[in-house]
This record gives sequence, structure tokens and C-alpha cells, in this order.
Amino acid sequence: MSTLIQPASGPSFDVARLDRLLEEHGIDVLVATSRHNVQYLLGGYRFFFFDVMEAIGLSRYLPVFVYRRGRPDEALYVGNRMEGFEHEHGRFWTPHVRTASWGTLDAIGAAIEHIAGLPGVRAIGIEPGFLPSDAAKTLADATAPARLVDATFTLERLRALKSAAELALVREASERVVAAMRAVFAACAPGMSKADVVGRLRGEEQQRDLVFEYCLIAAGRSHNRAPSPQRLEPGDVISLDSGGTYGGYIGDLSRMGILGEPDAELADLLAAVDEVQQAARAAIRPGALGGEIIAAGEAVVRRSPHAAVLDFTAHGIGLVSHEAPRLTEHGPVPYPATDAHRPLEAGMVISVETALQHPRRGYIKLEDTLAVTAAGSSAFGDGGRGWNRAGRRDDAP
Amino acid sequence: MSTLIQPASGPSFDVARLDRLLEEHGIDVLVATSRHNVQYLLGGYRFFFFDVMEAIGLSRYLPVFVYRRGRPDEALYVGNRMEGFEHEHGRFWTPHVRTASWGTLDAIGAAIEHIAGLPGVRAIGIEPGFLPSDAAKTLADATAPARLVDATFTLERLRALKSAAELALVREASERVVAAMRAVFAACAPGMSKADVVGRLRGEEQQRDLVFEYCLIAAGRSHNRAPSPQRLEPGDVISLDSGGTYGGYIGDLSRMGILGEPDAELADLLAAVDEVQQAARAAIRPGALGGEIIAAGEAVVRRSPHAAVLDFTAHGIGLVSHEAPRLTEHGPVPYPATDAHRPLEAGMVISVETALQHPRRGYIKLEDTLAVTAAGSSAFGDGGRGWNRAGRRDDAP
Repeated sequence: MSTLIQPASGPSFDVARLDRLLEEHGIDVLVATSRHNVQYLLGGYRFFFFDVMEAIGLSRYLPVFVYRRGRPDEALYVGNRMEGFEHEHGRFWTPHVRTASWGTLDAIGAAIEHIAGLPGVRAIGIEPGFLPSDAAKTLADATAPARLVDATFTLERLRALKSAAELALVREASERVVAAMRAVFAACAPGMSKADVVGRLRGEEQQRDLVFEYCLIAAGRSHNRAPSPQRLEPGDVISLDSGGTYGGYIGDLSRMGILGEPDAELADLLAAVDEVQQAARAAIRPGALGGEIIAAGEAVVRRSPHAAVLDFTAHGIGLVSHEAPRLTEHGPVPYPATDAHRPLEAGMVISVETALQHPRRGYIKLEDTLAVTAAGSSAFGDGGRGWNRAGRRDDAP
Repeated sequence: MSTLIQPASGPSFDVARLDRLLEEHGIDVLVATSRHNVQYLLGGYRFFFFDVMEAIGLSRYLPVFVYRRGRPDEALYVGNRMEGFEHEHGRFWTPHVRTASWGTLDAIGAAIEHIAGLPGVRAIGIEPGFLPSDAAKTLADATAPARLVDATFTLERLRALKSAAELALVREASERVVAAMRAVFAACAPGMSKADVVGRLRGEEQQRDLVFEYCLIAAGRSHNRAPSPQRLEPGDVISLDSGGTYGGYIGDLSRMGILGEPDAELADLLAAVDEVQQAARAAIRPGALGGEIIAAGEAVVRRSPHAAVLDFTAHGIGLVSHEAPRLTEHGPVPYPATDAHRPLEAGMVISVETALQHPRRGYIKLEDTLAVTAAGSSAFGDGGRGWNRAGRRDDAP
């Protein structure tokens, strides 16, 4: 992708915001090692060689970004030896670059050498879930008595407000995922297996320059959402819930298809799902508390005749599925509802999802993506929200 | 892929071999957490949802496979909550399955609970590079005084001998990568950028049901192998070195293209590269020591007029690029040459690679994949080893 071959001239993130967050959390030096945060801190850069797999030799690729609070002029990027090619292309904004490592220990070793030259390092922020145990031990031993502290949340707050360039990527990802789904619904026919449908979606997403991440699929009366040899039959409803990334940013949406025409009950069921969605969507605006979105959706759920089988939630989305803003602790992925009592800000992106697990009619779900804007909100990839008829290409937006 | 949707009835790996290796390394319980080893131990299974990304919420996906030596009846698989759908499909051979986790700590917590019920656990084998620091600390604290020991090498030895089914996947991956490269060479034209060529290769690999992993590309006189806006020009040589996986197994080969006709010097240079390759290839047979392959290639390098700019190495390949057998410590990826003095066995797979970094004529490389067979060796994806002319589709094998 063209966004991935631009030279970098300086940090593209908000340096003052990072410094403030590090100060708030008492972190002197940040050591980021997750692919998503390294991408963010390097202005969109990801090393193409390890974009999918990470294992090599007896260890694995470990990109390391080192940043002392307030001192971007001392920032270091530690990459794999092959990233020397990217360094020649001027792809790293960090004043210090080391591209000589192959595994976890030589990579963290280069970071340790750099940190040894920095003054006043008492607390080092790490990503515990994304720092392998051997690298963590080596870092802790070499930098003692400095403490290793969890910077996962700090980095998530940094990423919570998206730039215009990031929003454009989320929009592209969302629109392309939905376009791919509509093409797939048009091609669905009795006899295809759920695995066939997912294979087709993968191809449609890849043709649109997305990295296909996954597709959850339910068909017929089943609520099982794994791809399988289950065959589509006339009249089946199909739920597609797929994530695809564009420049690293996730488009994650759900749309419904049907092999035939929806009857009145199916039309009502999808309308019941949409009613929850619309109530939650309408609550999204700058200044609204995160919890208001959840409350708006839940109010509709409570008075629905399908309340017992309706699952509604909303969560932030960006480089990570389920990231800040964190609106509720009652979603499927457990985490603190940090933003339930904080005002939303323009530049946040929210995924809203409602699923109806109907005992007779199957799994009926919509999932939408909305950016918080100065004026309220803007939905990305908002087409195809009705019943998409198999075998019929509907070009309505 | 159909290999990924079969139900599992029992372990597909060699249980006796695993038990012997665990015994040799003094490991009572194995806790595998890398995607490649979990796939191996679950008989080819990978959870589709986290096949590419791993981050979710404030943590990440962590599959955990727990095995007490000699007791497959006590084996446990810990998956994400969504893997309940796969459990319904009977995809796990392990008698114990827990699919309730979302992050590193709840996943390792389920493993810890299981281990607490196992007798005589003094040493727990982990994968330090693939066990996140938070999960490692929780495991160590909960299972003390048991020791955590490194099982990376143990698991690599287990994987060193490939089954017929695994060899078929490596063959498919290799053949498809080469077929994709030949299609791309046929489509190369002046004015295309290196990034364009890689984008095209990605598409050709994906159309062949490969997961595109990476492509290193050099063009013209440059030895820089990163995709970039550099444009192809008439007469340019092009080196493609790409990895694509099929069912998780890597096809990793290099082929040469040219925009025009190779002159006598280029023909000689590729022949010089091939001479090294053929010498190393000819040494591959069961019973040969790993070091003999290296010695055979190096002997040709030493007497070559291009010795100073020839890079030759060979390494095992499978679920991980650069895995056992480990033939030399002098390759690009540093590791002990465990197999230099051990006999090769049928079922091992070896990648042989030679690159000539010519100061005037560019980067000229061949990389081949060979399985050790009872009769000697068998090359996978062995077509297109000459100069592939741009704009001309050559259907010779």
C-alpha cells in the first residue's frame, strides 16, 4: 500500500499528549513492543516481512520502540536486520535506529544499551502481553533498580483520538469490508458451504487491498459462527461478521443475507436489531458520556419482546479491535469501562453491535462503525444494512 | 482450506517421540503457547479469528496447549471463547478443552487450574519467546516450586521429521509460490514499481490459496530488497524471494527475472549461483551429516571467482522459516548448528539458498526446497530456475 512506502520525517503522533500521559502514569521511558503500537509510534510503518508470521529461528521478531519522556530526539527504533533496507529508504523518524537483531534477546539487548545511556530512568513502561517473557526478564535484570510498569493503557489512551489520516483508513477499511460482503451475498447459492462463503469473502476483501483478518458466519437456524462444511439451503439467513484491515486499521462490520425473500417475521426481527442500533448511534456525539451510548441501546433492548436473546454492546476500534473508548464492562471482552463517565471526543471511533439469537430463525446481527465528529457522528461503510438477497446484486448505497 | 475443517480424533503427532524428548529434557508438563506449536500439537488446527492479528481488548489471544508427559488422556487445550464454535465441531482431540478466555491472564489461569490437578510436576516446559511476560509471571508464581524451563528446542526436534501430510503441504506451498512468481515475471514491464510487483505477487499467491507472508525484491543494480517506489527499467534483473504458507507450512523460494534477454555475463552469474546450489543439493540424503551439505556448497563458493560476494546457506523449514535441521551457525539467523554432526533423516525439509551480490549486475539469487527421502531427496517447486523473461509466459516445468 502506498501509505507504507513513504519516508518519515518526524513523529506523526501527538508528542505532547504522549508526554502528558507518560507523566500521569509515572513512566520515564517507554518500551513498546506490540506490532500495533510500534506501527502507531512509527507513523504507520510495519515491517512487511513479519506482517503475518513472527517466528524465525529459535525465537521471533520483536520490534522495539524506545522513547524517553519529553525527548523525541533520543527515540530509538530496534528492527530486524532486514529492516536495514527500510532504513536506507528513510522510513524511520527516530533519530536512533538499530537494525541488527533476529530474536527477542538481541532486540531487547539493543534497547537496554540505549536505555543505559539515558539519565533518571526509574520507571520503564512495557506492554506485558506483548513483551515475551525472556525479553522482559533480561530487561528487568539489566535496568534494575528501575521498575517495569504496565504501559498498555497509557498507549491505548494515546491512540484513542484518531487523526484525519487514521479516520480515512478506518473509513476505507469499513467501506471495503461492506462492499466485499455485498459481492459475496450476491454470489451465495444453495449448496455452497459456510467455508466456501468465507473463502469467497477472503478473496473479495483481498481484491480490495484489505488484509483479510477473519469472518464469523452463521447460516440457517444455527448460531454456530465458525466456517464449516455446513451447506446453505434455500431460505437460509446468513450472518457475516468480518474484520479486514487497511493500512493496519480494522473495518469490522456485520451484515445479513438471505437465500430467498425475508418473510414478515424476518423483516421484523432485523428491524428490532436495527432499532437498538439506531438508538445507540443517535447517542454518539462529542461531549456525551460513553455510558450514554450503552444506556440508549439497553433501553431499547429492555422493552423489546426479544430482550432475552438480544446481545448489544459498543466499543472503540482502530488498530485493535475492542480498544478505547471503553464504554461498558459488560461486553464480551472484559475490561474496565474507563470511558463510561468520560465525555466522547471528536476523533474517537466506535463500533456498535446488536445480535439477536433467535431460537427458530437463526442468528441476526448488525454491526456498524461510527466516528465521533464535531457535528455528531459519521457512519463508515453504512450500506447493505437490510436483507441482502442472495443472487441479486443491489447497487443501492 | 479443507485441512482446517476436519474434526480431530486423536493426536496426529508422534506421542512416543514427544514423551522421549520431554524425558530427555527433564520436562514433566509442556505448556505450548506459540501459534505454530499449538497448530502442530492440535493436528493442523489454527483458530481462524486470530490467524493474523492477536491483539484484542487490553490484551491478546493466547492459545495454550498443556500436556503431561506420557498422559495424552490428560491433555488440555485452552482457547478463546469464540473457539466454542470449533469445539462444537469436534475439532480438538484433547480430552480437556476450555474455551472461555479473552486475554493472556485468563488463558494461563485455565492452564494453571489444570496443572494444579496433575501429580509430580517439577519442571514445566514453556516457550519463552512466545509466552507473554504477564502470563509467564502468573504461571511461575502459581506453580512454584516447579521450575519453568525452555521447551523451544524440544518442540523443534519434535517437528523436525515431517509426516507425509506435512510434506504434501510444504510441496503445495513451494509449487504455488513458484507458480505465482512465474506469473508475475510474465507480467513485469518497465515503469512498474517494486511495490507494484510485490502487490501483484501477493494477489497471485492469494489466488492460489496461499497466505502471502512476504516478498523481498531487488531490481536493477540495487541490492536493496524492500518493496519501494523504485521503477523497473528495460534490462533490469529482478530477484523475488517470497514466503507463502499453505495450511501453515511455508513455501520459501527465490527466482530471477529479467526485462529483456540475459547477456553472457548474466547467464554465467546465474550458473555460478546454480553450481553452488547443485553441489549442496547433491549432498542431501538420509545418513549424510548436516554439515556435509554446508561443506559441499562452501567448497564451490571457495573456488568461485565470485567468492567474495557469494552468500550461501542452508536451513530446515516447515511451520517456521529457519527451523531444524540446523546445519550451520554461520547463516544469517544465529543459532547452534545442532545437526551439523547428526545424520539427516527422511522427512526433514531443507531450504538451500545462494545469493550473488554483484557490484555491477545486481542481486542474483536462487533458493530451493528439498525434502530428504529414502532415496535421497525430492525438490519441491523446482521450476523457473533460469532467467524468467518479463512479458513472456514460459510454461516449461
